[in-house]
Amino acid sequence: MKILFVGDVVGSIGIKAIETYLPEIKKKVKPQLTIVNGENAAGGKGTKEPDYQKITRAGADVVTGGNHTWDKREILDFIDDPKKNILRPYNFSGENVPGRGFLKIKVNTKEVYVINMQGTALMQPLDNPFIAADKLVAKLDKDAIKFVDFHAETTSEKIAFANYMVGRVSAVCGTHTHVQTNDAQVINKQTAYLTDVGMTGSYDGILGDKKEPIINRFLTQRPNKFDVDEDGRMQIGFAVIDINDQTNNARSIKNYVITPNNQSFLN
Amino acid sequence: MKILFVGDVVGSIGIKAIETYLPEIKKKVKPQLTIVNGENAAGGKGTKEPDYQKITRAGADVVTGGNHTWDKREILDFIDDPKKNILRPYNFSGENVPGRGFLKIKVNTKEVYVINMQGTALMQPLDNPFIAADKLVAKLDKDAIKFVDFHAETTSEKIAFANYMVGRVSAVCGTHTHVQTNDAQVINKQTAYLTDVGMTGSYDGILGDKKEPIINRFLTQRPNKFDVDEDGRMQIGFAVIDINDQTNNARSIKNYVITPNNQSFLN
Amino acid sequence: MKILFVGDVVGSIGIKAIETYLPEIKKKVKPQLTIVNGENAAGGKGTKEPDYQKITRAGADVVTGGNHTWDKREILDFIDDPKKNILRPYNFSGENVPGRGFLKIKVNTKEVYVINMQGTALMQPLDNPFIAADKLVAKLDKDAIKFVDFHAETTSEKIAFANYMVGRVSAVCGTHTHVQTNDAQVINKQTAYLTDVGMTGSYDGILGDKKEPIINRFLTQRPNKFDVDEDGRMQIGFAVIDINDQTNNARSIKNYVITPNNQSFLN
Amino acid sequence: MKILFVGDVVGSIGIKAIETYLPEIKKKVKPQLTIVNGENAAGGKGTKEPDYQKITRAGADVVTGGNHTWDKREILDFIDDPKKNILRPYNFSGENVPGRGFLKIKVNTKEVYVINMQGTALMQPLDNPFIAADKLVAKLDKDAIKFVDFHAETTSEKIAFANYMVGRVSAVCGTHTHVQTNDAQVINKQTAYLTDVGMTGSYDGILGDKKEPIINRFLTQRPNKFDVDEDGRMQIGFAVIDINDQTNNARSIKNYVITPNNQSFLN
Ligand SMILES: [Fe+2]
Ligand SMILES: [Fe+2]
Ligand SMILES: [Fe+2]
Ligand SMILES: [Fe+2]
Ligand SMILES: [Fe+2]
Ligand SMILES: [Fe+2]
Ligand SMILES: [Fe+2]
Ligand SMILES: [Fe+2]
Repeated sequence: MKILFVGDVVGSIGIKAIETYLPEIKKKVKPQLTIVNGENAAGGKGTKEPDYQKITRAGADVVTGGNHTWDKREILDFIDDPKKNILRPYNFSGENVPGRGFLKIKVNTKEVYVINMQGTALMQPLDNPFIAADKLVAKLDKDAIKFVDFHAETTSEKIAFANYMVGRVSAVCGTHTHVQTNDAQVINKQTAYLTDVGMTGSYDGILGDKKEPIINRFLTQRPNKFDVDEDGRMQIGFAVIDINDQTNNARSIKNYVITPNNQSFLN
Repeated sequence: MKILFVGDVVGSIGIKAIETYLPEIKKKVKPQLTIVNGENAAGGKGTKEPDYQKITRAGADVVTGGNHTWDKREILDFIDDPKKNILRPYNFSGENVPGRGFLKIKVNTKEVYVINMQGTALMQPLDNPFIAADKLVAKLDKDAIKFVDFHAETTSEKIAFANYMVGRVSAVCGTHTHVQTNDAQVINKQTAYLTDVGMTGSYDGILGDKKEPIINRFLTQRPNKFDVDEDGRMQIGFAVIDINDQTNNARSIKNYVITPNNQSFLN
Repeated sequence: MKILFVGDVVGSIGIKAIETYLPEIKKKVKPQLTIVNGENAAGGKGTKEPDYQKITRAGADVVTGGNHTWDKREILDFIDDPKKNILRPYNFSGENVPGRGFLKIKVNTKEVYVINMQGTALMQPLDNPFIAADKLVAKLDKDAIKFVDFHAETTSEKIAFANYMVGRVSAVCGTHTHVQTNDAQVINKQTAYLTDVGMTGSYDGILGDKKEPIINRFLTQRPNKFDVDEDGRMQIGFAVIDINDQTNNARSIKNYVITPNNQSFLN
Repeated sequence: MKILFVGDVVGSIGIKAIETYLPEIKKKVKPQLTIVNGENAAGGKGTKEPDYQKITRAGADVVTGGNHTWDKREILDFIDDPKKNILRPYNFSGENVPGRGFLKIKVNTKEVYVINMQGTALMQPLDNPFIAADKLVAKLDKDAIKFVDFHAETTSEKIAFANYMVGRVSAVCGTHTHVQTNDAQVINKQTAYLTDVGMTGSYDGILGDKKEPIINRFLTQRPNKFDVDEDGRMQIGFAVIDINDQTNNARSIKNYVITPNNQSFLN
């Protein structure tokens, strides 16, 4: 099983990057499953139904979320639609959280769970993701592949989580920092891991947003309205995970970025 | 001018990684200046004089610091020695902060400022690094190369800082997260940038420390004593920045990691 | 039912304040139940068995905790002893947390639950205390009085919690900030509330600790060892809650501080 | 010199509380100077010119601010008007911060500096307020009274700041937590101190806002729009500081709250 995972899509330019590059990438990679984090698709914060539709139409099978999932109220109009493969972090507390934190999808004859989990270090105090994952994995089908989009801030929580889940899930791929890391590895020959897959959207902005307001916020510590850098050049961050369908162990994980200055993947 | 920059050395195993790999790397890269972040050399927290000596004896010209600089009181015994090229973050507040936040070093006929700066987003409230850098750079020699080790947590503050300093310093290289990022670039053909150069020490631990206590802290939220993973296999994270001595603009920046599974740099 | 609640006992001087004032206060108030927060009794951080013994011998029926509960490992030697009425915050995650987060105590013929809960705003990410309290209260005996020591940082989380629990518990008294607030009230004629009951220990220090290291930490942002201000003059912060045993609604709550400058309670 | 200090005015109901109670309070207290924190006057976040005008027309001589000062852009229309006695926290970084962080006002023949300072513990990383205060006080007229509105989150930073400034300013009164504390004191017979003066606005809400959205935010950790509880009953929190004009030492400080249940001050 080859899984293609694409990092946080930021704004319309992020969706355009998906539409531009995803078909080509899929042609090369030939993944059986394509997962895209869409928490920033709607103007940088949240995901509206048209965003979801464009991302899936361009080739995503599942769209994951993060701390920004709820920023646009319109998510509530479709996040509970069982026909839509959209996730929000699993470990929001309480019984009646809208949407789903994981889903099972059949890929040919093999079943894959896609799980979305959020960290709590230097973030909101959701349910402990380590314990939430313990409980969740215990009740899932043992024979299915399990892929986790772990949306978290700190490197320590991300690596600790992956090491904690070693042998219990096939892959832990980080999102949220919007910068791809260079530490792809298969831990213990079992679980593919990458601290962050990086961002999809403007190459010229700051994490997808226009530069000036972000610089000004750090400079002044006064409020600045952030806007997606819709006029920048495009980039896309992604990873390819190869999993042994017999053992559910990862064979390999490789991370890539396509930027204006680095189109080597496409050649 | 070629500068070699090596990320946070963690514990004795980190120093051993420096002693093992730095001479070989230098033979290949032939840098004119070698800078190593040493904030975690003393048992994972702080830097003692023997650590400084081993790191410089292995080939470092300058040792930089970060939020852990002060964790071992012994730093106070040598941080003010003008013959020692050790830095602490420049933007600690007040008049009488021990040590130096930058230094000037002569490399053949060219002068280079090495500057150590710390972020404040999701970290301690030091002086605003953007404003501190403004004031500092204004009073430094315009003709000298300026290299910044920006020790910070969030990707947004790091990228924003680099973009703010574009054209005013030759390079901004991030440290602190201990995971190397995959976004090396020369911004605007002027300033080399890498969000984080990564860590030097145990490949098998979590950011250089033993796995179990860190996992247990996340799992229990109760205190756990962290120890350096001194028995792991080694890794070293570094970057090579090439700077035009005429213009002080960066020509290129490349990031590398040597791990047990990836020795390609050495071949 | 009259409950006497005493805020965070800091160090040996805090225990001495308990030994000095608690008997006198009890003589005046005649409470049926006395609860003392002891998270800082052992040198300012944690609670050892002798601390527990001194506090109970001086008149406490139950000793509660907080974020510092685990700071001294010796807590593990007695926190699981069913004969000891010591609590730690209920909402630490996981199945095998040492100790208890609540207990039931019989006062004459009336039963009282004492519950210890910790906030998560600007603190560690424990389980959501609102949801934890929902679940806990649902399984407790409806006819018993319920008293909550809510150990939290922000005023907003404390007031929100009390309002959320209105009519379901008889009292919510805050601890952790070490400064008594002036907002005692019975919300909706049902639930007694006080944002913080304040601290018991040195009147002359800063929240019970020596002044200089704390000032120096803010001034320098470098590490400073904190010590209990054992040589100061004593203060004790407490509240008296009167509860209707028939309805379990609070009738009144009053807060008091005895300091060197304010001994009016004792006259 | 008697100074009357009133805590954070929240929304139109807060302004109405000012208009209702301030004249009566002033008639009783007969202060020579009245200072009101207005950072939440405009719909709970920020201060617009009409808010400023209503607050001053009702009897305030100076309006101070805090972290919410900048939330309504309209502040920029009048914060630099030298005829308007409006302050923002002094220690925002940089040279060109709009508005003023302190002002000098002549009260009969005595001069008083009103200083607005913001903490950085668990808040934004502004300039270190301890060092900022050092530098500021050094350049102010020694013979003038100095009053500080210290807008901060943690009790430790507030008490540490007051102790650091003892003998150098006449009063440090805290704001920001919206809950009045019960620790008014004159430190070392020199500097009046109160950790927080509390809030002015709805008695029935949570810190001035409607209850439901705040409870829901803690319960769900999802975004909830906060609204001022404009329909609640009113409260006002304030302190009266008496300062010796000869020595500039405080003689006394007393804190008060007027609520629907506690009108004793007015009788
Ligand atoms: Fe994102
Ligand atoms: Fe995110
Ligand atoms: Fe480090
Ligand atoms: Fe660090
Ligand atoms: Fe405490
Ligand atoms: Fe505490
Ligand atoms: Fe406020
Ligand atoms: Fe505030």
